[in-house]
Amino acid sequence: MNTSPLAGATQDEMRKRNLGSLLKHLHVNGACPRSELTALTGLNRSTVGALTAELEEAGLVRSEQPIGRGVGRPSIMVAPAGERAYVLTIDVGVVHASVALIGLGGSVLAWRELPHVPGETPRKLIQRASRVIESLVATAADGSVCVGIGVSVPGVVRHSDGLVRIAPNLGWIEVPLGSVIATVLRTTLPIAIANDADLTAIAEHARGAARGMSHVVLVSGDVGVGGGIIVDGELMTGAGGYGGEIGHMVVNPIDGRLCRCGSVGCWETTIGEQAVREALGDITETDVRSYLTTVPHGDPRLAEVGRWLGIGVANLVNICNPQAVVFGGIFGDVYRVVDDYVAEQLGKSLSAPVERLVLKQAALGPNSVSMGAAELAFLPLLSDPLGHLARCREVSAA
Amino acid sequence: MNTSPLAGATQDEMRKRNLGSLLKHLHVNGACPRSELTALTGLNRSTVGALTAELEEAGLVRSEQPIGRGVGRPSIMVAPAGERAYVLTIDVGVVHASVALIGLGGSVLAWRELPHVPGETPRKLIQRASRVIESLVATAADGSVCVGIGVSVPGVVRHSDGLVRIAPNLGWIEVPLGSVIATVLRTTLPIAIANDADLTAIAEHARGAARGMSHVVLVSGDVGVGGGIIVDGELMTGAGGYGGEIGHMVVNPIDGRLCRCGSVGCWETTIGEQAVREALGDITETDVRSYLTTVPHGDPRLAEVGRWLGIGVANLVNICNPQAVVFGGIFGDVYRVVDDYVAEQLGKSLSAPVERLVLKQAALGPNSVSMGAAELAFLPLLSDPLGHLARCREVSAA
Repeated sequence: MNTSPLAGATQDEMRKRNLGSLLKHLHVNGACPRSELTALTGLNRSTVGALTAELEEAGLVRSEQPIGRGVGRPSIMVAPAGERAYVLTIDVGVVHASVALIGLGGSVLAWRELPHVPGETPRKLIQRASRVIESLVATAADGSVCVGIGVSVPGVVRHSDGLVRIAPNLGWIEVPLGSVIATVLRTTLPIAIANDADLTAIAEHARGAARGMSHVVLVSGDVGVGGGIIVDGELMTGAGGYGGEIGHMVVNPIDGRLCRCGSVGCWETTIGEQAVREALGDITETDVRSYLTTVPHGDPRLAEVGRWLGIGVANLVNICNPQAVVFGGIFGDVYRVVDDYVAEQLGKSLSAPVERLVLKQAALGPNSVSMGAAELAFLPLLSDPLGHLARCREVSAA
Repeated sequence: MNTSPLAGATQDEMRKRNLGSLLKHLHVNGACPRSELTALTGLNRSTVGALTAELEEAGLVRSEQPIGRGVGRPSIMVAPAGERAYVLTIDVGVVHASVALIGLGGSVLAWRELPHVPGETPRKLIQRASRVIESLVATAADGSVCVGIGVSVPGVVRHSDGLVRIAPNLGWIEVPLGSVIATVLRTTLPIAIANDADLTAIAEHARGAARGMSHVVLVSGDVGVGGGIIVDGELMTGAGGYGGEIGHMVVNPIDGRLCRCGSVGCWETTIGEQAVREALGDITETDVRSYLTTVPHGDPRLAEVGRWLGIGVANLVNICNPQAVVFGGIFGDVYRVVDDYVAEQLGKSLSAPVERLVLKQAALGPNSVSMGAAELAFLPLLSDPLGHLARCREVSAA
């Protein structure tokens, strides 16, 4: 494939692109009247008819007669065939892992949590996961095809090959997770591995609090503080895939604490779970999130955390000028309590980037990481539906 | 024009896109053998021949017989016709303004500086510029066409309409500069207005120190500290066009100084020209940049500034994971002195985002702002060469 920016548009690429655009629209927005697809694409009706027929023949979409009657002839509904093409996701969390099958269109077809085994090696974890995956795949519909694997890791992941550079809370350093998964699952399907906060940002952008927005900053995490930044509708990966490490933005180098990363005064040290726990005083709950739901709005114990949250958010707003900052993980609960402190800090900063800014809690909950991993895993299918599907069918037949 | 992300690819768009890609390649890289264009695009030879013929007929490129002899039949060279299609740039600086005509391919066809008149209104400045512009345009080649206007302002500029929200060092607030220019120059040509640091980033990316890179952070400025961030080869504008205000990233809220923006401890207060002057002690030179050329490498007077520079750079590297950080304006000279202090700070941060990072001085000098404004002004031509050229011919005939 010619991937140079100068790559010329040929008939074949044009068709691929149109098929991909249609399928992506259905994948993200769900069933849609064919007449609306025609209006949205600007293509003529017969072209859209031919494209959807090709997708339907491949089993990727379904045409449905519309229910009810409107004025004029009702348009045929086109829907993603979620049970026919699905991805496998593996969420490697700090305290648990989970695997899921997620269908085209975003529906969770099957989901299973794996209990935490302390000190387990990456290979052992994936071996344990593979047995669960087998049982899940056995429940998949006849004739359905797995079109990719998406994996979430709470760490710094190299984009090019899925090497986990460091995942401090797992104790992982330089783990070639992509090749471990390929070996253990004996698969040549594409495996996309990414940082959990990046995946949450992708999920909230596709289906959650930032749906339809082009510029978004997601602040997420618990012990660590992670971020995912959406620029012009795409995740900002950076050169190596390490973009969005907002927790290690230094905001207090003079008076701050030593961070796990070696710097002093990282944002994470001022707003992370440890700082929140200390600010709340002697709480015995192991789950700080459920305790936070009992903390009243504006509780002065969290004023300091709120101000630091505001300082970091203002920095990100000045740098990225997003439409929204979305708070996930523990920060959804923290933000609910400290929103006024955050607003006060933002009020001290440049006014232009803030004026249309929306601050909000994440909408998708803990499954957002798997949803994001699924979005990533669906990308090859959405950029070349028929070609990718054919390749995946070959893989599963092999 | 259908600009929805779902907009379908039609034959006409495909041709437009191919013409645009070819012209953009020639604009950025200069003359190129036609055989190379064929290889780069993946299109067949006759298609590339037809496309370049169309561009040549429109006067946008020139075909040249190659000089010298290689093995086999030499390929025809295709070059951008810089003297036939040009843009007008206006650089509104703090201590001077300048206007230029810049041809397709990036050559400066004409350039004139305007002396500084303190307290001048935006309209008066543009009126004064318009007389100079008239005399420059009079020198343009017969039959040449102005295809756009690019304007640089040291301030916060709204992307959608060129409203200058605030330009503190000009004393401008909410200046509708786009409509002032359109009115005074009596033109309906597209006018693109942007922040000076953003334009420097665009120029360094297209033709300078960051050429060919996809992910870049530019740190620039003098009194103020500006930034321009390139993500996936494009300027990160953010939602309103205010992205890249890195000077107002707060790095020292506990012990820092009040910034012009109202916050305490902005990066600008720790590394801006005032901080540099104070660190250097009693320097009488009005031009700190020329004084900086006499400061020895590693001068301990600038150690503190160097450490703050490093802290901010590390933050941006953690957030954006660029291939390069480029230092422009005063920071090119500062970086030459303090590079070791910066490296020391970066060494304390996460290692993955830093490992392939290049830090370097900007390559283009003070003209980079006009070069960037020209790149922005050429965009409409490069996305639809024949259509845009026809529209501009109509404008200049009217």
